Amino acid sequence: MQDDVNAFVERFTLEGAATGPLAGRTFGAKDLFDVAGHVTGGGNPEWARTHSAAEGNARAVETLLEAGATLAGKTHSDELAYSLMGANAHYGTPRNSADPRRVPGGSSSGSAAAVAAGLVDIGLGTDTGGSVRLPASFCGLWGLRTTFGAVPLDGVLPFTRSYDTVGWLTRSGALMAEVAEAFGGAEGPEIRRLLLPVDIWARAEPACVAAIGPSLARLQEHLGPVTPVVLASQGLETWREVFRICQAAEAWQCLGEWISAHQPNFGPGIKERFEMAAAVDAESFAENDRAREGIRAHLRSLLEPGSVLVLPTSPAPAPLLTASEADLNGFRTRALEMLCPAGLAGLPQLSVPAGTVDGGPVGLSLLGAPGQDRQVIALALDAGLGDGAPSAG
Amino acid sequence: MQDDVNAFVERFTLEGAATGPLAGRTFGAKDLFDVAGHVTGGGNPEWARTHSAAEGNARAVETLLEAGATLAGKTHSDELAYSLMGANAHYGTPRNSADPRRVPGGSSSGSAAAVAAGLVDIGLGTDTGGSVRLPASFCGLWGLRTTFGAVPLDGVLPFTRSYDTVGWLTRSGALMAEVAEAFGGAEGPEIRRLLLPVDIWARAEPACVAAIGPSLARLQEHLGPVTPVVLASQGLETWREVFRICQAAEAWQCLGEWISAHQPNFGPGIKERFEMAAAVDAESFAENDRAREGIRAHLRSLLEPGSVLVLPTSPAPAPLLTASEADLNGFRTRALEMLCPAGLAGLPQLSVPAGTVDGGPVGLSLLGAPGQDRQVIALALDAGLGDGAPSAG
Repeated sequence: MQDDVNAFVERFTLEGAATGPLAGRTFGAKDLFDVAGHVTGGGNPEWARTHSAAEGNARAVETLLEAGATLAGKTHSDELAYSLMGANAHYGTPRNSADPRRVPGGSSSGSAAAVAAGLVDIGLGTDTGGSVRLPASFCGLWGLRTTFGAVPLDGVLPFTRSYDTVGWLTRSGALMAEVAEAFGGAEGPEIRRLLLPVDIWARAEPACVAAIGPSLARLQEHLGPVTPVVLASQGLETWREVFRICQAAEAWQCLGEWISAHQPNFGPGIKERFEMAAAVDAESFAENDRAREGIRAHLRSLLEPGSVLVLPTSPAPAPLLTASEADLNGFRTRALEMLCPAGLAGLPQLSVPAGTVDGGPVGLSLLGAPGQDRQVIALALDAGLGDGAPSAG
Repeated sequence: MQDDVNAFVERFTLEGAATGPLAGRTFGAKDLFDVAGHVTGGGNPEWARTHSAAEGNARAVETLLEAGATLAGKTHSDELAYSLMGANAHYGTPRNSADPRRVPGGSSSGSAAAVAAGLVDIGLGTDTGGSVRLPASFCGLWGLRTTFGAVPLDGVLPFTRSYDTVGWLTRSGALMAEVAEAFGGAEGPEIRRLLLPVDIWARAEPACVAAIGPSLARLQEHLGPVTPVVLASQGLETWREVFRICQAAEAWQCLGEWISAHQPNFGPGIKERFEMAAAVDAESFAENDRAREGIRAHLRSLLEPGSVLVLPTSPAPAPLLTASEADLNGFRTRALEMLCPAGLAGLPQLSVPAGTVDGGPVGLSLLGAPGQDRQVIALALDAGLGDGAPSAG
């Protein structure tokens, strides 16, 4: 069964609990989450063909059902989650309802498209390198990448061992907070200070920086002026490369055996990335993984005393559907430099709709200390962020 | 006659007017300023040898004398002003009293050294690409580069046609303001808003950004939170290159004939830069000069509605005297990317002592619209900047 915006792999109804904080809400689950009786397809037809139906529900799906939300179907993913743009060579590109000339972002593309089109209230996704945050920014949605390890990944198709997180997308900040409540978990330190990572801001286009200015001003009115910091003394290029190598090595650990056995037909970009992943040697992985530990310790100590980083989620609005592969690669490189800190350090990051550039939404992000997931949402709500965004409400 | 910190080319006394706002103050004049009866040496022995004593005083010298300040001598300059570090192969490197392990910065090296050592109250200098601002930051001083054209250059050895400005250094903000009053001139628009150019901040070392944080916080308390902007959508590397080519071409227009005729013996770096300057062709100059016009228009319109840019003056504290030529070149490249906007657009920039890193001072800059020279000084004073800096008072 298809839908107007090509958000769903399949639509069906799995009723949530009759009572609960999310009763009456609907959600779509990215096709990386197990749903009992349905094959978890992972965005690749060969994966679907070689796997049988799941026996149970992923824990995160179960949490939403128990909280009263009704599952409305499974949503498209970029192939095996290894992309950020939302194009899938086998299943097409879900529509970005906020600006249909543009890609929706990925890899949680279908969940973002379904929420942006109003087909469901909540889009369940995963975020390894930006797969919830970037589609949130592109589609004018609220999107949370949770603290690594805070939401169990049981029943989720594994992409990497130490970067994968559960996340979700909503049209309103109030619902974003309600979903976070349903997932519960520990809370982090109180937020007392805004840090502005100038090296990340310098990656964004001037028009994007201008568009999110008013949201930043509201935040500063609420919490006081920002303190500028340079995140990466070695340069964000270095961090991006550490992320790229570690992600690739871990992805090959998770998926290499199956890929080698089945030689699936991958779409453009995905094929090249898995070939690169297969070629990462153990020594290079170990070296980059050590570098990652240093970055993680640095970022966590920076955020320790109740600080959050405020930053543009994306360098620019979503690329146009007609963008060349070269343009997309350039965009991806810059985007990864802005998105990799949360991944490297396992930190929660919330993207809030903050304006538009040439009709395309752009998001402002709050990146918090471990466990601060609910506090960053509360801060965004208290500061009045997210108003007037294209898909807000 | 020598001095302990090698600041002076020659010391003498030329009494200022008995009454006047600067009566009782002393100043040193960079050896680019004419003083009647003295040869203007320009930091190069061959220049001194081939020029006779000046017949009159430079206009800026005259202004200070008329305001009551007494001239205490002529101070060292980097060779023909074509350097930023303060080393002079012929006359040695003036001492940076704020941290004697480090270079003083140039090309207004002697004026900065004399003020930092307390030998004079005011150091008269010139700033084409940072020659007042950088020594101010390095030596823990207040330093102003004036709006291009605001202070006449009559009687100043010309380095470039459209970048040279008069500037001065002081230990205290109050005296900085008094000198600006003495020079007078038009006033710019009222300052209402702080812009934070993230691409410039991203050039600074993390420790430098951290050190100037408290000064920025004071500014924000006073004027309200900053608004981030990206200055150079083409990248600051592009701006630096435009500056470098135009400065070189104009320097050759001013000095090429004399250099060709006298083949002076230049120190390291200076020689290479003048060779590069000689090789800039007319077409390249014209092209970069057109690019410069675009940058100028962009920056001026950004500052139009009463905004000032707040930025680190330098990427880091002054390099150590023992730094390698390669390290110095790397430093210069980054510094030029941070310093070139004011030069390209003819804008006033005030550097205020804002802290130290590893014992070396670092400055925070306010970069204003044309004519805002006195307003940026007033803003710094009103916000309480410059306290507790090593040489303040």
